[in-house]
Amino acid sequence: MKIFRLINNGWTSNFVTINNNVYVLMTDPVTALKMHAEGKEIPIGPKVELNLDEILNRDYTFRGLRFTKPYDPLEVWGSGIVYEVARARYTEEDVATIKGKTIYELVYDAERPEIFFKGTANRCVGHGEPIAIRADSEWTLPEPELGVVIDSTGKILAYTIVDDVSARDLEAQNPLYLPQSKIYNGSCAIGPFLVTPDEVGNPYNLDISMRIIRNGQVIYEGGINTSKMRRRIEEQIKYLIRNNNVPDGTLLTTGTAVVPGRDKGLKHGDIVEITITKLGTQRTPVIKLSL
Amino acid sequence: MKIFRLINNGWTSNFVTINNNVYVLMTDPVTALKMHAEGKEIPIGPKVELNLDEILNRDYTFRGLRFTKPYDPLEVWGSGIVYEVARARYTEEDVATIKGKTIYELVYDAERPEIFFKGTANRCVGHGEPIAIRADSEWTLPEPELGVVIDSTGKILAYTIVDDVSARDLEAQNPLYLPQSKIYNGSCAIGPFLVTPDEVGNPYNLDISMRIIRNGQVIYEGGINTSKMRRRIEEQIKYLIRNNNVPDGTLLTTGTAVVPGRDKGLKHGDIVEITITKLGTQRTPVIKLSL
Amino acid sequence: MKIFRLINNGWTSNFVTINNNVYVLMTDPVTALKMHAEGKEIPIGPKVELNLDEILNRDYTFRGLRFTKPYDPLEVWGSGIVYEVARARYTEEDVATIKGKTIYELVYDAERPEIFFKGTANRCVGHGEPIAIRADSEWTLPEPELGVVIDSTGKILAYTIVDDVSARDLEAQNPLYLPQSKIYNGSCAIGPFLVTPDEVGNPYNLDISMRIIRNGQVIYEGGINTSKMRRRIEEQIKYLIRNNNVPDGTLLTTGTAVVPGRDKGLKHGDIVEITITKLGTQRTPVIKLSL
Amino acid sequence: MKIFRLINNGWTSNFVTINNNVYVLMTDPVTALKMHAEGKEIPIGPKVELNLDEILNRDYTFRGLRFTKPYDPLEVWGSGIVYEVARARYTEEDVATIKGKTIYELVYDAERPEIFFKGTANRCVGHGEPIAIRADSEWTLPEPELGVVIDSTGKILAYTIVDDVSARDLEAQNPLYLPQSKIYNGSCAIGPFLVTPDEVGNPYNLDISMRIIRNGQVIYEGGINTSKMRRRIEEQIKYLIRNNNVPDGTLLTTGTAVVPGRDKGLKHGDIVEITITKLGTQRTPVIKLSL
Repeated sequence: MKIFRLINNGWTSNFVTINNNVYVLMTDPVTALKMHAEGKEIPIGPKVELNLDEILNRDYTFRGLRFTKPYDPLEVWGSGIVYEVARARYTEEDVATIKGKTIYELVYDAERPEIFFKGTANRCVGHGEPIAIRADSEWTLPEPELGVVIDSTGKILAYTIVDDVSARDLEAQNPLYLPQSKIYNGSCAIGPFLVTPDEVGNPYNLDISMRIIRNGQVIYEGGINTSKMRRRIEEQIKYLIRNNNVPDGTLLTTGTAVVPGRDKGLKHGDIVEITITKLGTQRTPVIKLSL
Repeated sequence: MKIFRLINNGWTSNFVTINNNVYVLMTDPVTALKMHAEGKEIPIGPKVELNLDEILNRDYTFRGLRFTKPYDPLEVWGSGIVYEVARARYTEEDVATIKGKTIYELVYDAERPEIFFKGTANRCVGHGEPIAIRADSEWTLPEPELGVVIDSTGKILAYTIVDDVSARDLEAQNPLYLPQSKIYNGSCAIGPFLVTPDEVGNPYNLDISMRIIRNGQVIYEGGINTSKMRRRIEEQIKYLIRNNNVPDGTLLTTGTAVVPGRDKGLKHGDIVEITITKLGTQRTPVIKLSL
Repeated sequence: MKIFRLINNGWTSNFVTINNNVYVLMTDPVTALKMHAEGKEIPIGPKVELNLDEILNRDYTFRGLRFTKPYDPLEVWGSGIVYEVARARYTEEDVATIKGKTIYELVYDAERPEIFFKGTANRCVGHGEPIAIRADSEWTLPEPELGVVIDSTGKILAYTIVDDVSARDLEAQNPLYLPQSKIYNGSCAIGPFLVTPDEVGNPYNLDISMRIIRNGQVIYEGGINTSKMRRRIEEQIKYLIRNNNVPDGTLLTTGTAVVPGRDKGLKHGDIVEITITKLGTQRTPVIKLSL
Repeated sequence: MKIFRLINNGWTSNFVTINNNVYVLMTDPVTALKMHAEGKEIPIGPKVELNLDEILNRDYTFRGLRFTKPYDPLEVWGSGIVYEVARARYTEEDVATIKGKTIYELVYDAERPEIFFKGTANRCVGHGEPIAIRADSEWTLPEPELGVVIDSTGKILAYTIVDDVSARDLEAQNPLYLPQSKIYNGSCAIGPFLVTPDEVGNPYNLDISMRIIRNGQVIYEGGINTSKMRRRIEEQIKYLIRNNNVPDGTLLTTGTAVVPGRDKGLKHGDIVEITITKLGTQRTPVIKLSL
């Protein structure tokens, strides 16, 4: 079961894909996911005639029906350094060290994962909607990640594609700038779909790939398989909810391993394209914010 | 434009028919009607595959998708004795008279119409849902009427079929029992559709017909044309909203002229079928309430 | 326990009087009444310094803190002809008769009471706020009545003073005009207090008195004791809620027996003063509405 | 003007102190603060009889009326290393360094401040309510700070005392653990009062002092004056809201300079007492959470 949301002139409706048919979803997405997780039949409306491929190609400049984020998460959290490649991602930079080890190496080896707050629904966009570069960042990177929607007990309700857009120069300057690097308007893209666990199967065998397109040319292409994930998702969730009540529908994005590098920083007008096995493709234009 | 609402296990979704195509309606019905009345384009979702005839045949016992009232009116009001035939409807009974004239004759001839409160959304049902006979009524009649949805200024936003079910024995006993005759659980049926004025055209040339079906047999059949309406709808609305603030989406049902008579009182298990030109057919089963 | 509500520039707060001390009420009034009825302690805030007599003298023209209706009832219903004197109230007029008996005599003698819809919160005012004369009424009378606040099961939660203002000329013209006589902006005044049953004791031994003051002169004075009520309140409630779901906090006003007469119709600028034993005094100015 | 909130059995009411008199506040706190900031008169109710000192001594174990957080901030943010003393606070530890400088020294000298997400209302407590030690922290410190309530444009609406409770051992282990150190149930205490800027005057001349009391003995006492604040509050706000939409009523806590040290970590049963000039005293018991 795949849930998605369309928007038209500010108004939204929810839909669900079951066995390649699209139906009207009569509940909000999180309620549907909870019902599905409990084995209950979700209330669907009639079948919908929708050329999904065509609609997926519409972006926020389209006058009419188009995709938007599949739901409004009250809280989005992120996890870091969960892939081995991430451990080394910062070695080319002057990163913070403690007793000769970088903080990334340390967290990679530690039992406790890095967990950070990534924002709220109003900082998130959906498929076809613009992700952003902070006005004061010269080096912002997309981070293609597997996202999990959980309930307040930590149970996984769905998977989705998340772009954990990060102002890498701020973060590189000082780890204390991580929140400013991670949390700002347009810093997170979700969707297009929320896909239930029964449809995803093993989450540790998914290909994550990303392309950055500039002026019609692919300027970056990279990928990883989630089998390379060192931190199990359950482990990340365990620390996220430890003594920390989160609401139903909280989104956790589980870390990146695809890092374009310093010369591949996003520019206004770029297109970011992220594909994850079984979760579809998320395409977002890039805008540079002004002060 | 025709708006309707489907329900599935307690959850509802709104739809709109435009040029015989059905689309997801992305606003609530009253907002859509107000936008339409102001000449604004209403936000619609994708086209829906729906065998309307088949779904219209489902009633409240159907496990799955079916019709329900097209919206939840905050207030429903009625108008009485607007057709000449209604003037005389009670002559066979011992009706209340003032100086030799029945109160129905008096109101028919008077400038001021009869306007009464008919209830709230929770007393209303939709197409396929059961209308009711009060536990303490032996003679309850359906009253097939043209309903108008108005905004708070009295502007007509849409037309619909209304069944102003009435406990006629209570009303006949004493006009002071009119509210008990008119307002109770299941005393009003609305829909299936809200149809906009541009699609209805002249509201004074619509056929209203009703059939009562018992054990598969038509036991009553009758009809009237709204051209026989003596009170113009605008006149009824004028008195309804005079010094009386009503909310957007208030429903006014404009009086009946189809009166089955004393021997045709509804019984538990009957089916009432009302058809109005351009507004479709409303079919409701009948249940007898218990104390 | 007496609950009341003050308003200041459109914002309201609830208060409760217990043993002559006034406290901040930390719940909404209906929740407090339900808790009290169930024997639970209601959550109160600190004691308040309030010269109640002085504040009761402020009316809606006062810039600052003043009384308003003690709560916003979702539905207000009325009962009629519950006192013997009411039975005969209309004899001087050409009232509707059935087989030689007036409809008022008939309902007085009948088992079934007259129950009518009286409006919603937006048609109601509070102590010090203006009740209204319809633009098209030449003869409008106040009707001082004992009001009961009930829950959805019909249990009495509180008593209050209600002025069931009525356009008597409309009603006299034709009983079918009763809703227009009874339901319009400013047709109902509630309060100042909601008083719990334990504080009222026997509701059938309360003095109801009313004065109409014009240009500083008392032009009408009258009263009755609720011992003269023929219809028991429980009987009225029984018929109100029969097959008719009403919400928690529904207000039923239990009928009048104080009728000023044709020459005492309200005029713009009058003051109506109603006192009921243990429920206080309700004072409301009168305004004439325009078309 | 000082705004505070009392709670009784789960129900709350707002109050305001003006010229040493306490009144019922008829709006929610943020609306009142916005009205006050715009020079509008806020709607107040009657004067309240309240022995504030006595009520301030009640804690969450009191059955009845007591203090709680003065409002529910949708977002709480923190600022770090704003005092010179904070710059050096970590020198005794093995802190992260970049090219020989600690990350704290770096941020202290940089133009860009450290800004971090501190949580939402459900992670905050009020005066008299328990702050918490994470189950997995052995060294948790209170951080007494000047808090500012801002609107969505960054305007300062009020000041308050904030205890930015932090699991210092997590933070010391790795700066990437800062969110886990800072955001968890009971990690933030607010109040007792929201005090408007006109009453506070110069925010850079306030004494902040803190005491930790264990078994009735003061085991720690320390303080600072806000004149030692190196980062101006406006500068912190500027970075907080840069390309980052925050809601009206967002709380920013402006950094600490009172650091008890490693041997003064909080223990279950401790009392933390923070006093800031003109803002009152916040007293909170300490509890240790379990896994």
